[in-house]
Amino acid sequence: MKKVAVMGCGIVGTGIVEILTDKKDDIAKKLGEEIELKYVLEKRDCSGEKFADKVIDDINIILSDSEVSIVAECIGGIGIAYEFIKSCLLAGKSVVTCNKHLVAEKGLELLAIAREKGVSFVFEASVGGGIPILRPLTNCLAGNRINEVFGIINGTTNYILTQMAQCGQSFEEALADAQRLGYAEADPTADVEGIDACRKICILADLSFGHNIPPAAVKTQGITCVSGIDSAFAEAFACSIKLLGRTVRDEKGMVTTFVAPHFVPKNALLANVNGVMNAVVVRGDSVGECLFYGAGAGRYPTASAMVGDIIDCVRHSDGCLYIDWGGEHRELQADSDEFVSRWYVRFKGDAAKPQQSIEEEKAVITEPMSAYKMRSAFGEENILSAFRVLD
Amino acid sequence: MKKVAVMGCGIVGTGIVEILTDKKDDIAKKLGEEIELKYVLEKRDCSGEKFADKVIDDINIILSDSEVSIVAECIGGIGIAYEFIKSCLLAGKSVVTCNKHLVAEKGLELLAIAREKGVSFVFEASVGGGIPILRPLTNCLAGNRINEVFGIINGTTNYILTQMAQCGQSFEEALADAQRLGYAEADPTADVEGIDACRKICILADLSFGHNIPPAAVKTQGITCVSGIDSAFAEAFACSIKLLGRTVRDEKGMVTTFVAPHFVPKNALLANVNGVMNAVVVRGDSVGECLFYGAGAGRYPTASAMVGDIIDCVRHSDGCLYIDWGGEHRELQADSDEFVSRWYVRFKGDAAKPQQSIEEEKAVITEPMSAYKMRSAFGEENILSAFRVLD
Repeated sequence: MKKVAVMGCGIVGTGIVEILTDKKDDIAKKLGEEIELKYVLEKRDCSGEKFADKVIDDINIILSDSEVSIVAECIGGIGIAYEFIKSCLLAGKSVVTCNKHLVAEKGLELLAIAREKGVSFVFEASVGGGIPILRPLTNCLAGNRINEVFGIINGTTNYILTQMAQCGQSFEEALADAQRLGYAEADPTADVEGIDACRKICILADLSFGHNIPPAAVKTQGITCVSGIDSAFAEAFACSIKLLGRTVRDEKGMVTTFVAPHFVPKNALLANVNGVMNAVVVRGDSVGECLFYGAGAGRYPTASAMVGDIIDCVRHSDGCLYIDWGGEHRELQADSDEFVSRWYVRFKGDAAKPQQSIEEEKAVITEPMSAYKMRSAFGEENILSAFRVLD
Repeated sequence: MKKVAVMGCGIVGTGIVEILTDKKDDIAKKLGEEIELKYVLEKRDCSGEKFADKVIDDINIILSDSEVSIVAECIGGIGIAYEFIKSCLLAGKSVVTCNKHLVAEKGLELLAIAREKGVSFVFEASVGGGIPILRPLTNCLAGNRINEVFGIINGTTNYILTQMAQCGQSFEEALADAQRLGYAEADPTADVEGIDACRKICILADLSFGHNIPPAAVKTQGITCVSGIDSAFAEAFACSIKLLGRTVRDEKGMVTTFVAPHFVPKNALLANVNGVMNAVVVRGDSVGECLFYGAGAGRYPTASAMVGDIIDCVRHSDGCLYIDWGGEHRELQADSDEFVSRWYVRFKGDAAKPQQSIEEEKAVITEPMSAYKMRSAFGEENILSAFRVLD
C-alpha cells in the first residue's frame, strides 16, 4: 500500500482525488498494489467535499509523515509550488506535477535533487495534457536518435485558429468565444502570445536532446498576427494555419527551437487536428514519424496523466525514474532565423509574382530559405505577413 | 552493464543488432548503464556480417550463460520461438518479442511464467510496429477505465485500400503492387483475410480489459470483399474504407471484439491514415480519445520498439514489468453481430430507398442497428455488401 498526498485541490487536483477514490480497486488490480489518498493540502474551505476529512493546510504534515511516499502538485506557478516540490523531494518523496511553467524553468534543478535523493520527479501532464507523450518519447523511443519534435501544444490557440478557418470568425470574435466556453482565461496573454507553447516545446526539447533549453532562449511568436485574410489564403493554398512549437536537431547536434504559426498542408494529419485538441509529432531515425493526439487540457485528461505518473512512481518505488536532462549548452542552440523552410508571404507592391490573390491582396509560397533571406528577398517594408510552411 | 542475446537475425533481428551496436554510447547516456550484445542465435551463414563473432547456433549457450539477462526473439511463428522463449523465461531471463502470433496465442501463459520467475515478458512491437501503444495503454493511461480501442493495425491492407481509393486500382492490382513493393507476402492470406489484425486486436483487448480473448473467438472479416464500387460509394458518402480491429467494453463489462472493413468519415483523423501507416485510437473515461500513429512494420520501426523494450527491461531488472492479463472469461465475450452501429449497405431490388446511386448500383447509410437487424431489414439475398460506419 502506497500513500499519496495531493497539493492544491482546484480543477485538476479534484480530478486526481476523484480518480484515486472512485477507481481504487481497478488501480490496485492493474498495479498489484493499493494506492491510498492520505492528504489534500488546500487552503480554501472544503468542508462540503467528500474528501473533507483528508484536508490539511500545513505542508509540514506531509513533509514529516514518512507514510506519504508520493505527492501530486496542482498548485501552479513557480512560487510556492516550487518551494513545496523542492521540500517534498528533499524529504525523500516522489513528486508528480502538471506544472509546465515550473518544469520548463526548474526541471533541471528538481530532477537533480530527485536523483540525489533516489526518488522520482515526473511530469507527463505538463505537455499535451492527457496525451501520453513524454514517457513514450523517453522510454519506448529510447533506441532512436530524435531528429525533430513539433506539434500543436496549446489548445486555446488551436481553438481560435480553427474557428477563424472554419467559421470565418475574426481573432477577437474567436477569442471571445474561447473565453465564454472556458477555453481561454480572462488574461489570454500566455496562450495567444505563445508563452505556454514555448514552455512545452522547451520540455520536449530538454527530454529529446538531453540538454537544458530555457524558455528565454526560444524565439516565440503567438497568433495575434494571424488575420482573417491569412486564413483565407491558407485555404487557397490547401493548408491549415497551426501554432506549432518545434525543436529540430541537425547532424552536427545544433538544436533550433521556436514557436510560430505555420501553414500546414491539409494532407498532413496535423492539419486535421482541430478545436482544443493537441498533437505532437516525433521524428526518430529508426521509427520514422510518430504522432500522438488527444486532449491537451481539462480536469480529467490532465488528472488521467497525473494518476498514470503516480502509478509509475509506485512501480519504481525502489528507485528513481531516470530521465536524461543535462545542463544548458548555449553553443548547441542555433539561431532560429537561420532555419530553412518554405514560407507563405503576403506582401504589397511588386516584391514577387503572386501565386494567389484575394481581394487585391497577394501571396506566395516561396522556395526553402532562412528567415533572413526571406526578409531581404521581399524587403521588410513589403511583408504584410510571413509564416513558415511545414514540410 | 547488461548483456543481451538476439534470437533470429533476419530483417528485424539485424535492425536490433545495428541499433544496439551503433548507438551503444547514446543508449548508455540515456539509460545510465551500458547494454552489450553478447550473442546472435542464427542458423544461416553470417560469416560476412559485422556481428559474425557473436553468432551461435545453440540456444543452450544462451540458457546456461548467467551473464545474459535479456533475450530478444525475432524468429517468428509459434513453434520453436515458443519453446525458446519459454526456456529463456524459465532460465530467469527477460524476453522481448515482436511476434504477435505468439503473443496473441501464448501471451497469458508466458506472462504467468515471467511473473513467477520475477522477470519481464514484453512485446511493444507486436502491435503497431514502432508506434508506442502498449506501454502508453498499460502505464500512462492506467488511471482510465478503457471503453474502446480500435485502429488500423495492418499496413498491407491499408496500402491496398488506399490504392483502391486514391488510384482507382482493383483489389488484385493493388495487391500485386503491394507484393512488388515488399508490403505483402507471396501468400497474402494472413493480411488480406484480417488474421494478422485479429491477433493484434486480441493483444490490445487483453491488455485493455485484463482478461484473455483468444483469436479463435473473434469474428474476422478481411478486405477481399471490398470492391471498386464500394470504394466509389465511400467517396460519395465522404468516407474512407479502412480495415479496423475493434474491441469495445460496455457498462456491464461485456467485451465485443471484431475485425472488419469500416466506412470512416473523412473528418476523423483515422480516415486520413494512408498507405502502410498504422494508427490506434484509445477511448478512456478520463482522457477521452487518444490516437497513436506511425509505421506499423519494417526493420527499423520494429527494431526501435524492441530496443525500447530492452531498455525498459534493464530499468526494471530488479523485478518484472507487471502486466495485468488474466484468464479467459467467456461469459464476458459478446456476440459481435449484436453490436449496434450505422451501416453502409449496397443492395439490389427495392430493399430501401437509395441515398446514393452509381451506375445503377444503389447504396444507403442506415440508422444504428445490429448486424442481425440490418440483414433482416434488407433481406440477405438483396445485400451486395455491408460495412459498419465508424462513429
